[in-house]
Amino acid sequence: MDNKIQSMIRKVSLELQDNYNSQGLFDVELGEKLPSRDIIVSLINDLRKLTFPGFFGMENMAYSSKDSFAANNLSILYDKLFRQVKIAIAYGTDLKYRELNNRAEELTTKFVERIPHVQAMLLKDVDAQLAGDPAAKSKEEVIFSYPGLFAIAVYRYAHELYELQIPFIPRIMSEHAHSRTGIDINPGATIGEYFFIDHGTGIVIGETTTIGNHVKLYQGVTLGALSTRKGQALAGVKRHPTIEDNVVIYANTTVLGGETVVGANAVLAGNSFVTSSIPANSKAASTMPELEIRKSK
Amino acid sequence: MDNKIQSMIRKVSLELQDNYNSQGLFDVELGEKLPSRDIIVSLINDLRKLTFPGFFGMENMAYSSKDSFAANNLSILYDKLFRQVKIAIAYGTDLKYRELNNRAEELTTKFVERIPHVQAMLLKDVDAQLAGDPAAKSKEEVIFSYPGLFAIAVYRYAHELYELQIPFIPRIMSEHAHSRTGIDINPGATIGEYFFIDHGTGIVIGETTTIGNHVKLYQGVTLGALSTRKGQALAGVKRHPTIEDNVVIYANTTVLGGETVVGANAVLAGNSFVTSSIPANSKAASTMPELEIRKSK
Amino acid sequence: MDNKIQSMIRKVSLELQDNYNSQGLFDVELGEKLPSRDIIVSLINDLRKLTFPGFFGMENMAYSSKDSFAANNLSILYDKLFRQVKIAIAYGTDLKYRELNNRAEELTTKFVERIPHVQAMLLKDVDAQLAGDPAAKSKEEVIFSYPGLFAIAVYRYAHELYELQIPFIPRIMSEHAHSRTGIDINPGATIGEYFFIDHGTGIVIGETTTIGNHVKLYQGVTLGALSTRKGQALAGVKRHPTIEDNVVIYANTTVLGGETVVGANAVLAGNSFVTSSIPANSKAASTMPELEIRKSK
Amino acid sequence: MDNKIQSMIRKVSLELQDNYNSQGLFDVELGEKLPSRDIIVSLINDLRKLTFPGFFGMENMAYSSKDSFAANNLSILYDKLFRQVKIAIAYGTDLKYRELNNRAEELTTKFVERIPHVQAMLLKDVDAQLAGDPAAKSKEEVIFSYPGLFAIAVYRYAHELYELQIPFIPRIMSEHAHSRTGIDINPGATIGEYFFIDHGTGIVIGETTTIGNHVKLYQGVTLGALSTRKGQALAGVKRHPTIEDNVVIYANTTVLGGETVVGANAVLAGNSFVTSSIPANSKAASTMPELEIRKSK
Amino acid sequence: MDNKIQSMIRKVSLELQDNYNSQGLFDVELGEKLPSRDIIVSLINDLRKLTFPGFFGMENMAYSSKDSFAANNLSILYDKLFRQVKIAIAYGTDLKYRELNNRAEELTTKFVERIPHVQAMLLKDVDAQLAGDPAAKSKEEVIFSYPGLFAIAVYRYAHELYELQIPFIPRIMSEHAHSRTGIDINPGATIGEYFFIDHGTGIVIGETTTIGNHVKLYQGVTLGALSTRKGQALAGVKRHPTIEDNVVIYANTTVLGGETVVGANAVLAGNSFVTSSIPANSKAASTMPELEIRKSK
Amino acid sequence: MDNKIQSMIRKVSLELQDNYNSQGLFDVELGEKLPSRDIIVSLINDLRKLTFPGFFGMENMAYSSKDSFAANNLSILYDKLFRQVKIAIAYGTDLKYRELNNRAEELTTKFVERIPHVQAMLLKDVDAQLAGDPAAKSKEEVIFSYPGLFAIAVYRYAHELYELQIPFIPRIMSEHAHSRTGIDINPGATIGEYFFIDHGTGIVIGETTTIGNHVKLYQGVTLGALSTRKGQALAGVKRHPTIEDNVVIYANTTVLGGETVVGANAVLAGNSFVTSSIPANSKAASTMPELEIRKSK
Repeated sequence: MDNKIQSMIRKVSLELQDNYNSQGLFDVELGEKLPSRDIIVSLINDLRKLTFPGFFGMENMAYSSKDSFAANNLSILYDKLFRQVKIAIAYGTDLKYRELNNRAEELTTKFVERIPHVQAMLLKDVDAQLAGDPAAKSKEEVIFSYPGLFAIAVYRYAHELYELQIPFIPRIMSEHAHSRTGIDINPGATIGEYFFIDHGTGIVIGETTTIGNHVKLYQGVTLGALSTRKGQALAGVKRHPTIEDNVVIYANTTVLGGETVVGANAVLAGNSFVTSSIPANSKAASTMPELEIRKSK
Repeated sequence: MDNKIQSMIRKVSLELQDNYNSQGLFDVELGEKLPSRDIIVSLINDLRKLTFPGFFGMENMAYSSKDSFAANNLSILYDKLFRQVKIAIAYGTDLKYRELNNRAEELTTKFVERIPHVQAMLLKDVDAQLAGDPAAKSKEEVIFSYPGLFAIAVYRYAHELYELQIPFIPRIMSEHAHSRTGIDINPGATIGEYFFIDHGTGIVIGETTTIGNHVKLYQGVTLGALSTRKGQALAGVKRHPTIEDNVVIYANTTVLGGETVVGANAVLAGNSFVTSSIPANSKAASTMPELEIRKSK
Repeated sequence: MDNKIQSMIRKVSLELQDNYNSQGLFDVELGEKLPSRDIIVSLINDLRKLTFPGFFGMENMAYSSKDSFAANNLSILYDKLFRQVKIAIAYGTDLKYRELNNRAEELTTKFVERIPHVQAMLLKDVDAQLAGDPAAKSKEEVIFSYPGLFAIAVYRYAHELYELQIPFIPRIMSEHAHSRTGIDINPGATIGEYFFIDHGTGIVIGETTTIGNHVKLYQGVTLGALSTRKGQALAGVKRHPTIEDNVVIYANTTVLGGETVVGANAVLAGNSFVTSSIPANSKAASTMPELEIRKSK
Repeated sequence: MDNKIQSMIRKVSLELQDNYNSQGLFDVELGEKLPSRDIIVSLINDLRKLTFPGFFGMENMAYSSKDSFAANNLSILYDKLFRQVKIAIAYGTDLKYRELNNRAEELTTKFVERIPHVQAMLLKDVDAQLAGDPAAKSKEEVIFSYPGLFAIAVYRYAHELYELQIPFIPRIMSEHAHSRTGIDINPGATIGEYFFIDHGTGIVIGETTTIGNHVKLYQGVTLGALSTRKGQALAGVKRHPTIEDNVVIYANTTVLGGETVVGANAVLAGNSFVTSSIPANSKAASTMPELEIRKSK
Repeated sequence: MDNKIQSMIRKVSLELQDNYNSQGLFDVELGEKLPSRDIIVSLINDLRKLTFPGFFGMENMAYSSKDSFAANNLSILYDKLFRQVKIAIAYGTDLKYRELNNRAEELTTKFVERIPHVQAMLLKDVDAQLAGDPAAKSKEEVIFSYPGLFAIAVYRYAHELYELQIPFIPRIMSEHAHSRTGIDINPGATIGEYFFIDHGTGIVIGETTTIGNHVKLYQGVTLGALSTRKGQALAGVKRHPTIEDNVVIYANTTVLGGETVVGANAVLAGNSFVTSSIPANSKAASTMPELEIRKSK
Repeated sequence: MDNKIQSMIRKVSLELQDNYNSQGLFDVELGEKLPSRDIIVSLINDLRKLTFPGFFGMENMAYSSKDSFAANNLSILYDKLFRQVKIAIAYGTDLKYRELNNRAEELTTKFVERIPHVQAMLLKDVDAQLAGDPAAKSKEEVIFSYPGLFAIAVYRYAHELYELQIPFIPRIMSEHAHSRTGIDINPGATIGEYFFIDHGTGIVIGETTTIGNHVKLYQGVTLGALSTRKGQALAGVKRHPTIEDNVVIYANTTVLGGETVVGANAVLAGNSFVTSSIPANSKAASTMPELEIRKSK
């Protein structure tokens, strides 16, 4: 009986090997490996701890000097990130070992230098959530519990890595935020100050999107591209919309296309499907007649 | 070379400290701390175990008496919750230590006394999922696997804590459910019996929403507020709609505004954007003409 | 004081017991138990490792022979799955112990024999993501990070278990993918080759849905059923739509009903609510007039 | 190069298989398995928690009734132990499934009924440690930190299982205590009341040892057997000494042999090697002359 | 059948309660709790990391400044220790909450101020291991792997806490080292510089022992007290020996008694039992005649 | 008040830095790191699983072919060990990266090729435990629970690494076994077939010890060196005894010195201190007169 199962396993094993061979699925790791998802998630936590030290450190901060806290955690972060960057840029490259180290050092340094700037941006984002959500009980609650702020923070850090053209890591970061919050912001997007996301589940912001300052997006809003089957041929082309300052877009509205511009101060109703530009200072809604209401039978 | 990095780290550290100082980010923890997310998540599991003992206890229940099971698990729950409540109400207060204890004891007691009531509500919700979803194979499957029921259970318990004006904890609970299920029910909402949620991803139910009995919501439905930049000035004002008994709202429909009432027995089509009231006993849909269909080129 | 709490706990305990008794909540486990969610999640990882060995094995594959890797991991998988299948089919059955073993062996064997077929399907799905998403940097990134591919992979394996009428396990698998990705594909659905999901949050695909080859779905698309309160009376009836080959459906569109057919090569605009069939080779959009644009006050 | 390693692995794999075949090392698990070390260690913790509830429960006991605490934890313990006993007695047996269940139920019941007796014994042992060690600061410290008490507690519970002739589990328990404390008490030994062990590292108490009441053993004391190469031929024969009431044995003394009796109230000096009996009421020491003391060069 | 087990559990539960009542086992925790063993073990690791930063930090130290590393880790340590000290001194006290805080702060400060002194002592101990063990391959190996050094480090830190009369914590520390290494050094002992322990298993050093500089102890050496049944009546009395500078004691030798002094530069042979003083500058061994050697039969 | 603590921390931090500077404690890690203790412990488990597959594999072996099991686990082991070997030999070396890889590959290959030989040795050791311990209930119990066999297995594998002159790893392995079992076998020792250890706590076997076949050691036996303060000057010199075939040494006996030979078939009594050779075929014991027995007062 068990022999029967062993034979079946052997047969299936051979079939799997055919697939392995046909696509080189097995060989991809010859001497290489991919960055570690777990370490990258821990980097996100380290960055949050540095950004909002009173909220995410396990320890009571009362006895720490700001100086030693910041310097020591930065040095730990530098080391962790350096190793992951080295793995990421080594993938598929033919740089020599020393060059790889130099390049990873240069990239990690550039990223770390940007942390205070990102922190300053995030402090403005916290203000935006407070201003936009009457249900927010305090700044503490926003920083500690709001998925929108979490997704924005991950985006802002991932965007810096994206700008440095580091592969894999920005995407792993943004997919982590996507999985936890349902908010999918491509690290390539450009997003201004005081960005506000409410609830957030279902929000999609594509790679070539540009968003101005003081923009508010509600759950389910897509800033996306038109469908294509051309794949990588379109990589780099602007395929996603531009949203100017002070725009509000209500829930579940879909805005598509690289030439679509939503002008400054515009307000878009929810559940709209928008594929052409909206002028500034307008309120735009489908000219749906009043809902037709029929008495139930 | 490493000296170069150490200098960079020192410079960045100083910049971070400027941000810490400007916003008091570092001082927030002086002698205080926030409730523990991990413990609150474990409380959710404890409450599920007490509510549905045959489904979430690791152990075989065959040898337990109902009495000792319930009493012992209640006492463990009481202790855990009491400590978290004490931390939550201590945050930013100037109560004396003894007063804090008394207040935490009073609040925890009131919550625990409500557990059987919530359990009875949840048993009705289970019936509602079974009646509403032909794909449900059994009551067991609903209790064990349905994200809608999970979100409702977390909401019902968090709502009791919200009513007792305990800070932080209800929000941490609801964000946990939000993250796991994509369903975001504010603990402040009021929801009647036999509540049905199908699939659920993207559902948002705002803080001042009122929902009657036998209501059914599909994925992507928002019961939300109109956008504001007034922030806390609107806290407490009714900003979200009222949904009366037996209403059905199909997927991705957005209903906004504190004066919007969806009357009893109404059925709302999906993908609608509703900002004014819908009378009872009606079927309401956008009077969209037939879809316009063009031949592809 | 503590006596007061102990009395309260006793009172609450008695009330909980009333609920336990009224619904048999306590007795469900007499000698039985449910499959383990944690083990089933680990099975998903095992299946991914077998399918894409270079991407999810912790170890460097350089020293492994494909043959021993596949055979050994298959035998471990067989054993784990066999035990869970036995628990799942034992639930509520009165099969004798030996019959149960034979039945579990038969089902597990049938599933394992299907793995190479599912793997071949998934390799085509990888190609579809690459072709459909210009932001995809490489096949590696798709396999390693794309939530759409994760959800499709879990669906394809869960579907095989569904076809074998194994209870609980397919649902636990699909709810795991739903929780991680926001994509809810019922294991009962039938889905063709080269299936493409972008972003994916909020996608719902119901139990009796049929989907052809080369179909593309964007985030928030529902392929669902009309609302019912008839519950299990409709189990097994076709309640969800049919999507033919090469169809594209944009974000947040809802398609409902068992008789609704979206014909081959059709393109559906986003944010539409569709309850009747769409002919092949058409572009279908709501005939919404231009958005009405009002100047802000 | 990697091919070279793969060849080497193949060669080594074949050699390992020769060893597997020669000793049946691979076949031992055909449908059977051994008890789980981790679960048995957790059972030890459960027993400690039941025995000394204020010390090892994670939770504050203030709100628990003794009754529900004891009954609920006993039922959890019963279930866990029952499953392990079933595995242990199934190993190498040909009992039918129902007989196995009945037998496991009978044995588990007998064990659980003995818990209060063992607890009463352990309370006397606590008193003995306090009386014997001036460094003990409190009863709390003894219960919470003393390795001697830990080893005695594990022995007393393992001994009950040994008496019921349950295989594997007593030994796994005693080896756990041995590893943590360096004290190796065979579960077969018979030990009276008020047993005192100080420090304990290196203590060995053999399977057929008998120890009376109020006995004190110091670290490194062996109560052992004479060497043999006869193996299982001597199983069951009394091979270890008898220690009567009120005996004190100082550090590192070795007492060997099944006919060796250390009479009541005797005191044995440290570092002695004893292979014949010592009369009661005596002080026994090697008649070593004074230490010879030579001036260092 | 299960009813039978439930009855048995009820009966056993009542018997356990009798024991709980007779000894107050249940009430010990009313509002109090004991320090956390896990946190104290983590404190040991934190202290090792501060003492030997290059060896036990997970991260690469290359980018850290010594200053921020030390200051930040000290502040984390301070906070952790402060909380445990507060719990430890609160046990059984009636200090008011503010007094408790002040007292804990005072004690924690005194301990932290001693860390550099202990570190300096440990660096001398490292030198002693290197000088005493030809098998030591490097200073790195001694610091990273030697159980003797581990036990000495834990002792030196626990001794500082003992001197401050902090209850529970020193004992929990020393029992952790005892369990890991088999070396049991009471935190009350006084030990000089350049202390050397080889292998170490079975070493016992009692509470009132005094040890000079450059002393070497081998495995199994006891520096103990004579047996007593007087218990706490002898607490504080000197009951353990005094070992002067440069003494060597070989394996398994037992030295007992508070008036026993081993004079400077003495060398004690192994396996001796010593209950009276040994003069300085002597080689002391049992005047055992040559081993008697009999031909085996 | 907190400022006071921050000042104290700053002061202590400066003192620690003085120590760091004086000994280079901080700089040791510049670009290097030590092997991972956790991974090396996991390697021990991997080796046990390969050696005794039916006992330590988590999975049921029924469906595995011996061939794929052995080959796949060997390849995983190879990869893990290769990385640790590379770290170990890189420490303090100036080999170029490619040379390092080649050397690590060569060493790992040599080790893996020895596994079947070590396995064969261990199977003989299992037989020796069974023959020597009447309390052993079965071969299964010996393999699964005996600390002596665990220590011997770790020694035999660590010895192979020692012979290959790989630094750190053998020592980390032997200290792990020492910590778990109290048995300290230096990886450098040479030990013949059918080696038997009973109980084992306190056994010490030094680096240059030679042990023949069929030797039996009881707990507390030291095979050690005479004390030295010469340190590394004696490295490599034979300092530990030679034990010939079939010798038995009873508990707590200490044998010291590189020129001490215990001849074949000799039996040494317990608690002896032996510093000169013992002829073959003799029974050697201290010629202690009968124990002097005095009546207690």
